[in-house]
Amino acid sequence: MSSGNDTMYAAVLRGVQDLVIDERAVPWPGPGQVQVQITSVGVCGSDVHYYQHGRIGDFVVDSPMILGHESGGVITAVGAGVDPARIGERVSVEPGVPDLSCRECREGRYNLCPQMRFFATPPIDGSLAQYVTVHASFAFAIPDTMSDDAAALIEPLSVGLWATRKAGVSPGSRVLITGAGPIGLVNVQCAAAYGATQIIVSDVNDHRLALARELGATDVVDVREESVPQAAAGVDVLLECSGNAAATADGIRALRPNGRAVLVGMGGDTVTIPLGHLQTKEIWLTGTFRYANTWPTAIDLVASGRIDVDRLVTGHYRLDQSVEALLSGQQDPGAVKSVINPQLTGAP
Amino acid sequence: MSSGNDTMYAAVLRGVQDLVIDERAVPWPGPGQVQVQITSVGVCGSDVHYYQHGRIGDFVVDSPMILGHESGGVITAVGAGVDPARIGERVSVEPGVPDLSCRECREGRYNLCPQMRFFATPPIDGSLAQYVTVHASFAFAIPDTMSDDAAALIEPLSVGLWATRKAGVSPGSRVLITGAGPIGLVNVQCAAAYGATQIIVSDVNDHRLALARELGATDVVDVREESVPQAAAGVDVLLECSGNAAATADGIRALRPNGRAVLVGMGGDTVTIPLGHLQTKEIWLTGTFRYANTWPTAIDLVASGRIDVDRLVTGHYRLDQSVEALLSGQQDPGAVKSVINPQLTGAP
Amino acid sequence: MSSGNDTMYAAVLRGVQDLVIDERAVPWPGPGQVQVQITSVGVCGSDVHYYQHGRIGDFVVDSPMILGHESGGVITAVGAGVDPARIGERVSVEPGVPDLSCRECREGRYNLCPQMRFFATPPIDGSLAQYVTVHASFAFAIPDTMSDDAAALIEPLSVGLWATRKAGVSPGSRVLITGAGPIGLVNVQCAAAYGATQIIVSDVNDHRLALARELGATDVVDVREESVPQAAAGVDVLLECSGNAAATADGIRALRPNGRAVLVGMGGDTVTIPLGHLQTKEIWLTGTFRYANTWPTAIDLVASGRIDVDRLVTGHYRLDQSVEALLSGQQDPGAVKSVINPQLTGAP
Amino acid sequence: MSSGNDTMYAAVLRGVQDLVIDERAVPWPGPGQVQVQITSVGVCGSDVHYYQHGRIGDFVVDSPMILGHESGGVITAVGAGVDPARIGERVSVEPGVPDLSCRECREGRYNLCPQMRFFATPPIDGSLAQYVTVHASFAFAIPDTMSDDAAALIEPLSVGLWATRKAGVSPGSRVLITGAGPIGLVNVQCAAAYGATQIIVSDVNDHRLALARELGATDVVDVREESVPQAAAGVDVLLECSGNAAATADGIRALRPNGRAVLVGMGGDTVTIPLGHLQTKEIWLTGTFRYANTWPTAIDLVASGRIDVDRLVTGHYRLDQSVEALLSGQQDPGAVKSVINPQLTGAP
Repeated sequence: MSSGNDTMYAAVLRGVQDLVIDERAVPWPGPGQVQVQITSVGVCGSDVHYYQHGRIGDFVVDSPMILGHESGGVITAVGAGVDPARIGERVSVEPGVPDLSCRECREGRYNLCPQMRFFATPPIDGSLAQYVTVHASFAFAIPDTMSDDAAALIEPLSVGLWATRKAGVSPGSRVLITGAGPIGLVNVQCAAAYGATQIIVSDVNDHRLALARELGATDVVDVREESVPQAAAGVDVLLECSGNAAATADGIRALRPNGRAVLVGMGGDTVTIPLGHLQTKEIWLTGTFRYANTWPTAIDLVASGRIDVDRLVTGHYRLDQSVEALLSGQQDPGAVKSVINPQLTGAP
Repeated sequence: MSSGNDTMYAAVLRGVQDLVIDERAVPWPGPGQVQVQITSVGVCGSDVHYYQHGRIGDFVVDSPMILGHESGGVITAVGAGVDPARIGERVSVEPGVPDLSCRECREGRYNLCPQMRFFATPPIDGSLAQYVTVHASFAFAIPDTMSDDAAALIEPLSVGLWATRKAGVSPGSRVLITGAGPIGLVNVQCAAAYGATQIIVSDVNDHRLALARELGATDVVDVREESVPQAAAGVDVLLECSGNAAATADGIRALRPNGRAVLVGMGGDTVTIPLGHLQTKEIWLTGTFRYANTWPTAIDLVASGRIDVDRLVTGHYRLDQSVEALLSGQQDPGAVKSVINPQLTGAP
Repeated sequence: MSSGNDTMYAAVLRGVQDLVIDERAVPWPGPGQVQVQITSVGVCGSDVHYYQHGRIGDFVVDSPMILGHESGGVITAVGAGVDPARIGERVSVEPGVPDLSCRECREGRYNLCPQMRFFATPPIDGSLAQYVTVHASFAFAIPDTMSDDAAALIEPLSVGLWATRKAGVSPGSRVLITGAGPIGLVNVQCAAAYGATQIIVSDVNDHRLALARELGATDVVDVREESVPQAAAGVDVLLECSGNAAATADGIRALRPNGRAVLVGMGGDTVTIPLGHLQTKEIWLTGTFRYANTWPTAIDLVASGRIDVDRLVTGHYRLDQSVEALLSGQQDPGAVKSVINPQLTGAP
Repeated sequence: MSSGNDTMYAAVLRGVQDLVIDERAVPWPGPGQVQVQITSVGVCGSDVHYYQHGRIGDFVVDSPMILGHESGGVITAVGAGVDPARIGERVSVEPGVPDLSCRECREGRYNLCPQMRFFATPPIDGSLAQYVTVHASFAFAIPDTMSDDAAALIEPLSVGLWATRKAGVSPGSRVLITGAGPIGLVNVQCAAAYGATQIIVSDVNDHRLALARELGATDVVDVREESVPQAAAGVDVLLECSGNAAATADGIRALRPNGRAVLVGMGGDTVTIPLGHLQTKEIWLTGTFRYANTWPTAIDLVASGRIDVDRLVTGHYRLDQSVEALLSGQQDPGAVKSVINPQLTGAP
């Protein structure tokens, strides 16, 4: 059950703007784990943030850490207690493994597990490497028809799925999505897949608004020109994906009685909300933290053709081009999702 | 089916601090309505606010309006289509009648009906009068064992019940209630009736905290001396009853993962909330606006002895003492709930 | 605000297999009502059953009754309190109007109102007539892009929508639908619109199974050849649309842990269910009775193109061909939904 | 971290009516486990059934098995990764440990885990022994004020709690409980703790009906004399605890619109239900299989004095009196719950 290699390459962040492709020992699967040869890793805003700033809030990169947590690959070895028939299985990897036995886990909210070990959240290494190991139950089989990239993008899709579920989007829902970055765009796709018949997207970037339309938005609002509370008045759901305080307050003001606001975008430590509107309309407000139990549904939605995540990929990179991939979003206004193949190292 | 009288007395607010006991025509029940002779009316903070300021937010008392909306009495006449056998029935009156046919009503959220007609919300007259008429389905029979005062106090109890339901309080819940005024206190009673095994109440008033303990609080916090986020760390539910911005933010910070914050107290137009905590703990936040479908449960809880609302009454007044009753809260720190009997007019 | 006519034609059932086209006074809208000129009426199995047997269970046609309850048309007059601007509005008519004020109505379950007045349920006249009156809130505007037939078929679509909602179908759900008659087929369409990625349909009729496939079924099972508990093992949801006792039991046996069975088909007074499976898998089981709050969603789904109800129509008839329309299902194995236009009377 | 002993005594079932007190090696806690010295074990109907018949349905006692699964004790040793400070902690033991990582577990329904290992369900040994080992997260600390017996009886209480939760019992609920055996009686206690204001209990045993009244029933029905569908007409909830087919059907017929029936009692493989009533009233029906996430709430309810499980104990036995304890229910009509202390062996 060997992968045939002893060492591998990985993209290691050593400090602010200090990323190297380093040689590491290939990790070996412990009991209940699988070893996955990684074929595709999506670049996330959090990877970029760690690269640029060396931290996200209280999470500080104190010692060298492998980046990456959106990943797909193929099982190359299994640990004790795992069916060896899984070797060769193409998988999408869920990047956070909880302790499975605390109150949150037992009640089905494992994303809130205080013992969560999550790829590329210090001090846990990520998956921008040639191999990773993960709990066998967190490596999900994908069908042959699904691409390697799609396997990786099940992760950002899960972010949208989780928000859409919390928002209770269902056929006939009217949905406002504030912010048309990568997370806003997967939320557009999810809202459409959940049957929303009106999907209004607001942003300040024409290119992104155009892309939102292609992915399912029925209306777009350029917030430099239009008032969101007016343009979207009476929506059932707000999916806030910008992290912008004004967008949050304006979006809430657009909600109808009993509407739901789900805050996905990360902003400051606090946010000011329109209390009177929230009370007199009995609005429900919540935020999302990662996701739970989304992989099977996300894979089904992609496999059945209801959602096309490959459509989001705007660039492919080799492992040794990781810095280029990390910076692509800032350098190309048309960039949405960059994908790195860790098996390609640029070595001759 | 006559009440036997043509005119009655009512407490009419004509302007700021200008309340008179006026003679009015006894209202006659239209089709589907009942006429109720009022025997007990609780004084609510909103009555006091209208008396002192002539308005609450956008609701302005432009023309003379009868105050009062917490009321019990006895049916004295019925309109077309209502069973005459109901004459003589002792009832608690739900003070808001919606249009019953809009989307909100059809979906069971009639408190959010945009056509709601609510006692003592301008321009609708209230129930601080000797007679009122109301839709027959909004006058609820009470058992003989229930007092007239309790019939009136089903209304504030409903405010607590609605918040407690939205918060999902159930046996074993740990609940923080910020603010121990009349609404905070009924929330204490409701949380206990819903099985909460820990009920922490915060306030700055020793007298109220002591009363909270008597009514079911297991712990009290004097916010002048203790930090709420510390003292209540890990509660499942926040029932915010103070309308205070700091209490709201502190209360949210005390919530455990997946906790619920229900904002009952009325504060400013906006409030600042701890976004990071809300997101990483996936807290649910909402506000309440009146109530829906609470009367049967509230009456059951009082009739079965699970909740004692008579315990809240700290003063009885005649109709001609209405101003005294309205001012009692400010003049007596021990006052909780003043009740007026409109049948007593002080006339010889 | 007149319709311009005093009398109209209607299809009146006088007894078993005794239907006549009778002249009746055009009904005039009372307060809060609208008058609708009917342009399309779908034939339902219940119409056929009343025609053939003069009764459905305890509901007996004792005196002449107009048939029909799936209907669309255009508003031709309004009663007091209704906006006259609605005259000329094309509408789909919800055929049951509840009392709106009982406990069931106030809690949002108006389909369970004991005072419900429902078209063509004795002794209430139906809508297979040139004009009907109905509560203004139960006549729903449709867009120009929607056909008259589609307006009528919002009713059977609502039956499917209600079952699909009760079943909690959502993206990724695996659904078994037993029975591919008209109700089974709209359930196929609804399950697909709600995001089910596997839809297994069972029946004994090749033609219907083929149509099920066209409408969204991913798998079909001929129960003469295959075992449903095996072929559908592990589904999340059973939508039982056959009324067949064996199908019900077999369908339940196919359900996964925590699965839901919704019994839509009408069978006998009792049914025998696999208790052990229900308990050890904690299956939820319920039945549907009409629907509540489905019209806005159903219209949205048709208007947005997500569901094509016109696809179900297999025959058009004039009012004087009503008997032919009622018998079409028995005479043509390919018939699914027959539609009658009451404005066409065959008169020269 | 030793318990100080190498061997212990346990009550081992070798075959039908063949129970011996056997010497066994004291089990040693593996990683993540604790060792518990057992001080109290409740006798359950399933223990009696295994003793009498050597099987329950498909679960057959093929080789010697220790009985017992209702148990409390004190932690005497901990495995790797468990805080040694827990040694000495008094605990209630949840008797089933799932795999924690399958779909059911991840979604919070671990009672439906197909890999569940449950005490005294063949071939897993039970807890009627001097020591057991269990996953540290399934041994729950109890306060000093709780008795050893109460620690054991958290298990049957959990059965009632789970049913009460599934039934959605809340303040004001009217509940029918069919069957007043030990499980019916804990359901009475749970319904009361959840705020039910009417609790109707039916049985054929006067003694049990009298006890039901003492524990919180507001009405009792002797089914030999009264009709349950009439006596309990209009209840919100049925908690079926008799396993009797007629009780199940009659109980469902008593339910109001949107009522819930939860089948707790074990009867035959199938049961016949009133389909017409279920459909026209849109009743929800389900069954229970063990429980999930009940221990913290159950302990809270006992610790706070809201439920008194000690009240159910009608006999105490030494380990060597296990057969006597198992037969007590059949020999004494007043017996409700017999409790065995495995530390008492009768040895001189």
